[in-house]
Amino acid sequence: MENAQARWLWYPGDLEKYHALKQNFSRVERGCPWPAFWKSDGFRQRVAFRRTYRLEKPTSFTVFGTPGGAGYADVNGRKYPFGKTVSCDPGEIKISLHIPGEIKISLHIGCIGCVPAVYVQGDIISSDDGWTVEDYCEPPVPAASSRYFVKPEQNVADWPLLEKRFDPISIEAVNGGALFTFETELTAELEIKGSTNPPTVYLGESRAEALDTANCYYSCTPDPETHRCPRQALRYAFIPGYQPEQLSVRAFHRYVDVPVRASFVCDDAELNRIFAVAAHTFSLCCDVFFLDGVKRDKWIWGGDAYQSLFVNRYLTGDKDIEQRTLIALRGNDPVTTHINTILDYSLLWILSMGEHAETYHDTAFLRRMRPKMASLMELVRSQRDEHGFVIGRKQDWVFIDWADFDRDGPLCAEQMLLAAAYDVMARYGNAEEKTRYEAEKAALLSAIEQYFWDEEKSAYVDSFTSGKRHVTRHANILAIVFDLVSEERKRQITQSVLFNAAVPAITTPYFRFFELDALCRLGYLKEVLSEIKSYWGGMLKLGAVTFWEEYDPKLPLEKQYAMYGDPFGKSLCHAWAASPIYLLARYFVGLRPDQDSASGFAATPAPGFFDSLDCTLQLGETTVQVIARDGKTEIKLVP
Amino acid sequence: MENAQARWLWYPGDLEKYHALKQNFSRVERGCPWPAFWKSDGFRQRVAFRRTYRLEKPTSFTVFGTPGGAGYADVNGRKYPFGKTVSCDPGEIKISLHIPGEIKISLHIGCIGCVPAVYVQGDIISSDDGWTVEDYCEPPVPAASSRYFVKPEQNVADWPLLEKRFDPISIEAVNGGALFTFETELTAELEIKGSTNPPTVYLGESRAEALDTANCYYSCTPDPETHRCPRQALRYAFIPGYQPEQLSVRAFHRYVDVPVRASFVCDDAELNRIFAVAAHTFSLCCDVFFLDGVKRDKWIWGGDAYQSLFVNRYLTGDKDIEQRTLIALRGNDPVTTHINTILDYSLLWILSMGEHAETYHDTAFLRRMRPKMASLMELVRSQRDEHGFVIGRKQDWVFIDWADFDRDGPLCAEQMLLAAAYDVMARYGNAEEKTRYEAEKAALLSAIEQYFWDEEKSAYVDSFTSGKRHVTRHANILAIVFDLVSEERKRQITQSVLFNAAVPAITTPYFRFFELDALCRLGYLKEVLSEIKSYWGGMLKLGAVTFWEEYDPKLPLEKQYAMYGDPFGKSLCHAWAASPIYLLARYFVGLRPDQDSASGFAATPAPGFFDSLDCTLQLGETTVQVIARDGKTEIKLVP
Repeated sequence: MENAQARWLWYPGDLEKYHALKQNFSRVERGCPWPAFWKSDGFRQRVAFRRTYRLEKPTSFTVFGTPGGAGYADVNGRKYPFGKTVSCDPGEIKISLHIPGEIKISLHIGCIGCVPAVYVQGDIISSDDGWTVEDYCEPPVPAASSRYFVKPEQNVADWPLLEKRFDPISIEAVNGGALFTFETELTAELEIKGSTNPPTVYLGESRAEALDTANCYYSCTPDPETHRCPRQALRYAFIPGYQPEQLSVRAFHRYVDVPVRASFVCDDAELNRIFAVAAHTFSLCCDVFFLDGVKRDKWIWGGDAYQSLFVNRYLTGDKDIEQRTLIALRGNDPVTTHINTILDYSLLWILSMGEHAETYHDTAFLRRMRPKMASLMELVRSQRDEHGFVIGRKQDWVFIDWADFDRDGPLCAEQMLLAAAYDVMARYGNAEEKTRYEAEKAALLSAIEQYFWDEEKSAYVDSFTSGKRHVTRHANILAIVFDLVSEERKRQITQSVLFNAAVPAITTPYFRFFELDALCRLGYLKEVLSEIKSYWGGMLKLGAVTFWEEYDPKLPLEKQYAMYGDPFGKSLCHAWAASPIYLLARYFVGLRPDQDSASGFAATPAPGFFDSLDCTLQLGETTVQVIARDGKTEIKLVP
Repeated sequence: MENAQARWLWYPGDLEKYHALKQNFSRVERGCPWPAFWKSDGFRQRVAFRRTYRLEKPTSFTVFGTPGGAGYADVNGRKYPFGKTVSCDPGEIKISLHIPGEIKISLHIGCIGCVPAVYVQGDIISSDDGWTVEDYCEPPVPAASSRYFVKPEQNVADWPLLEKRFDPISIEAVNGGALFTFETELTAELEIKGSTNPPTVYLGESRAEALDTANCYYSCTPDPETHRCPRQALRYAFIPGYQPEQLSVRAFHRYVDVPVRASFVCDDAELNRIFAVAAHTFSLCCDVFFLDGVKRDKWIWGGDAYQSLFVNRYLTGDKDIEQRTLIALRGNDPVTTHINTILDYSLLWILSMGEHAETYHDTAFLRRMRPKMASLMELVRSQRDEHGFVIGRKQDWVFIDWADFDRDGPLCAEQMLLAAAYDVMARYGNAEEKTRYEAEKAALLSAIEQYFWDEEKSAYVDSFTSGKRHVTRHANILAIVFDLVSEERKRQITQSVLFNAAVPAITTPYFRFFELDALCRLGYLKEVLSEIKSYWGGMLKLGAVTFWEEYDPKLPLEKQYAMYGDPFGKSLCHAWAASPIYLLARYFVGLRPDQDSASGFAATPAPGFFDSLDCTLQLGETTVQVIARDGKTEIKLVP
C-alpha cells in the first residue's frame, strides 16, 4: 500500500546542485557543447537517512534508491537490500531494544553520478516527514523533498516534464525544402515522420534563422526509433530536400509544471497583449530554474534571476523555483569566487535572498541559507579598500551593465549594491549582525557621499580615482531603487541624470528594468507606460510572440536577430523582457506587501490609467483579484 | 599520427577521488551493497586545460573528452567540437595575434558523473607535458596524468586491468553440486559455460565458505551473454545442482599492473615460502589503491595504508599507488572529519606522507600536498586540551587497536602519534613551521612525561585522568618505534612492558606490526624471526596460500574463518599480513635509505641468520640485489 505523502528524499540543496550542473552543461551551439565558465559545485555523494518508529502492529516497507547508487537499509542493526520488502513485527523485536516495538531505521546510499536519494514505500514506514539526513560531516538536518518527485519509479536525475502537442500552423515549400511554423515559441521535442532516413532539421526562433542553414543555432536529426529530436527551443523548423507533403511534423512542448496564475485585462488591448506575451515569455523561461532565455545559453545567471523574482511573485507565486535557483546559484562553501564570476551578481544574490524572504516569509529556508549569505558577504567584505569600497579582483568580472563605465578604482554602482546588500544582511541577521551591518551601511553611504557625489554635476560619478568625474545613469538609478539617498537627492538626480539627454541612455533591457523601476518609484508612471507601449508594443508590431533579449526600435525586423557578434545570437524569448508584468502589477495595479494591513497586502490602482481593469495576480503565494470599474475598486482574495 | 607521449589529462587529485568513490562504494555483502561510512569527497566537475604553441608549419589535432562530458576546444577564440580534427596553419593565423604562428588552445569540459578529462591526439599539438588546468577557483596548476591512461579510446572511468586465465586445479562432485578449486586466491571474473540457464555460484576464500551457501559472502550468476560473473575475490567456487562434467569453469584473474619486483631466497625454505606468500598476498591487495583485503570490505583505510607503505617500498617500489592512496584518503579541504572517521588514522596519514617523502623524494608531490598536511594538522591541533593532548570529539573514532584501553580523558597512544606527526610536519615544513612544530613536539613530549609516565610501573599508562594507571603495550611500543624516548627509557619499557607477560599481549596483526618493528629496532631479531616462523609459518602449515587478517595458533583450521561476529568475516588475503616482507628486508637483509652513502642506501645483512642469501629488493624506485654467502656480502644495483 502506497502512502500518499511518500516522496523522494535527499540532502537539502543536493538535488538543486545536481540539476544546476545538468543545466549549466546543457548548452550546445552549432554542434559544440559549451559548459558554463564558472566554478561548478557538486553534490554530496554519500549520505544516510535516519528515523525511529514505535510500532504497535506488524508492517512492511520497501526502500528504493537512486538508480546506479549503492546502499542498504539498516533496521535495528540488520541490513536489507533496496527493492525488497522488509517486514517488521513489533512482537519479534526483542531484547536488544530498550523500548518495545522501537525500530531504528537508517538508509545508507552512495552515488557518484547523481544525487543519492531514497524513497520508502509502506503504510506506516514511509518517506514522508520526519526523516533526518547526514553527510558524515555536519550534524543531521531534516531531509529535503519536492512535489515533483513523489513516485517510487521516478529517477531524481530526470526532472518530470509535462507535455503538450502542437501541430504546425503553416507548412510551406521554400528553398527546396519544407518549412514548418508553430504558433509560438516552444521548448519542444520535434517529431518527424515520413522519411526513410532521419532528415536534418534546422530550427529557428525566427523564420530567417531556420532558413539560414549555415548560421542557425541548432540543427538535429530525429532518433530513428522515437522519431523525436532532442528538446530544444524553436518556433520554425526547416527540413531541406523534402516536400511538405512527404513529412509529418509535430512539436511536443515539454515543460516544467510552474503554472501561470495571473491575468491582466484592461481597456487597452495593446497593454493586455503585452502582459499576455510577457507572461508567455516568462513562463517559457521557468524551467527547473529561472533561465535567462530558452534558446541561447540557458545557464543560470544571478542578475537575470534577481529580476525574475520581481515578475515571478506576481505571475506564478511559485516559491520553489525561486529557492531552487537561489540554491543552485550559491553553490557550496567555502565560497572563493563570485556568482557567475560577477561581483555584482554576488551582491544581487544577497538582494535576491531579501526579496524572496520578503515575499514568502519562509523562515526555515532563510535560516538554512543565512550561513551562506554570511559567507558570501564575507568574501565581498574581504575585497574592500581603505574607504570600505568593494573592488573586483583580477579574476572577478565587474559587470553592472554593458555600458562605458569609467572603471578606474572602485565603481560607484557596485558600492550602491553593497549598501543595499548590507541592508538585507541587517534585516535578516541576528541582533549583533543588525547593529554591525547597519553601521557598515551608514559608513559606506557616508563614504559614497564623500567620494562619488559630484555637487557640480549633481550626480554620482563612476570613479573618484581617475579624476574624470564621468557620469553614467547606473549608480544614480540604484541609489533611487534601493532608497539609499534622501528624497531631495532623488529629485536632483532625476533632473540632472534621468531626464538629462546628455547622460548616455541605458541600452540594455537588463538595466532598463532598474531605470523604469526608479521612474515608477518617483511617480513618473505616464512616462513608464508610454515606454512600455512603445518598446514592448514595438516588438509586438514586428510580430513578436515572445519578448526579446534586446530591441532597437530604429532597426527593421531583419536586423533584429544579431547580438554578441552572432547573426542569430539574440534570444527572442528572454526572461528579463517580461518586466512589464512587474511594473504593471506593482505600480499600475498597485499590489504590494503591506505588513500593516490585516491581509498582509495592499492594492491601490494608480488613478487615471484604466477605465476598467480586471486582473488576477499573485503576491507570493496569495492570489488577489483586483477589479476597477466606474471609479470603484474591488479587491478579492482568491481562495 | 599519434604522439607516443600523449595521455589523458585531468585536474590533479580528481582521478583518485573519482576512483576512491568507486572503490569505497563497491563493497557488497551477501547481496547488500555497503558504501563506506565516512565523508566521501567528490571531484571537480568543470575544468579547463590551456596551452600555447608557436607553430612553424601546419598541423592538426583531435581532442577527446570523458564520455558523457560536455566540452569543446577553443583555438585562438574559435570553438571546435571534440572528436573532430582541427587543422592549424600558421600562415592563416592572422592579425588578431601579436606573435606570428602563436596558437592559444583551451580545452573546456564539464562532466557530472566522472572526472572531466581530455586527450589530444596530434603530431605537434598533443596532451603531453606543458598543459595547465584550472577549476575557476584556484590559480592554474600543471595537469595530471597516469601511465595507465595513454590511449584515446580509453575511458578514465574504467581503470585498465591485466588479465590472466586460471583453470581449476581440482573439480569435485560434492553436496549435490560441483566444487571448483583454484591454485590460489584470485580477484577474478569467473566464466561458467555449459548450463542452459545461468547457474548460481557460491564463492569462497575457503572451501568451507564456498560450500556454506547460506553464509558465504558472495554468490552470483554469470551474465548470459559473456558467461562471466562480476570480478570478485575467490579461490573456491561451488555450483549446486550441477555435475562437474556438465560445466566448463575458468577464472580470469583481473588485476592492476603493479608488478612485484622483489624476491627473497635464503637457506630457510620456510622463510622463503613466507616471503613468497606475503608477496602474493600484498600483490593481490594492490589494486587502484592499497586495499585492506581483497574479499570483505575493500575500502581504503588510512591505518592499513600506512603499513602497506613499509611493504610496498621493498616489494614493488611503485610510487604511484602510494600517491593515489594518499590522495584518495585525504579528500578535499576544508577538512572537518578524520580520515575514515578515525583520529589516529589522520595522524598516520601525516606519518604516511613522511614515509612516502623519505622513500621517493618526490618534491613536487610533497609541495602539492603540504597545504593538505597543514590543514589536517590544524584540525588535530584544534582538538587539544590545556596540556596539548589531542582528544577525540563525539563524532571521532579513537581507535589505536582492538584492545581494552582505559579510554578516560586523552589516550596516551594518540599523543605518541601526535608527537611523531609534529616531527614530520617539522621535517617537511618551511623554516617557520620547522621551529614551531619542533617546539610543539618538545612541549608535548614533556607533558607526556609528566602526565603519562608511571615511574613505579616503569611504563606509559593509557590515561592519567581515571587514576587507574592502566598499562597497555601500545603507547610504549609507539614511543620506541617513533624514537620518542631515550635509549635508557626504551630499555626500561622493553623489560617492564614488552617482555612482561602480565601486560596483555597484542592480539591483532595490525598492531603486531608495530610491536615487531619495535623489537627489531631494539635488536631482538632472534625473537622476531622465531615469531615470523611460528605465526606466519603456522598459517602455511594450515594450508594458507595467502596470509590472513588474523590467526590464532590455538584454533583448528575450521575455527579460523570467523571474525567480527560473522562466520566467514575474516579476510584470508590481507595486506597487513604481508609485514614479514618489511621486517626481513629492513632488519634481516638490512636494506635502508642512507643519505650519507653515495648510492643513497645501505645494506648490512644481520649476521648469524642466513648461511646464504640471494634477494632482490626495491628501495623505493631503486632495485638492489643482495647476495650473501660464505660470510661475504655482495650488493648490486640492478639497472
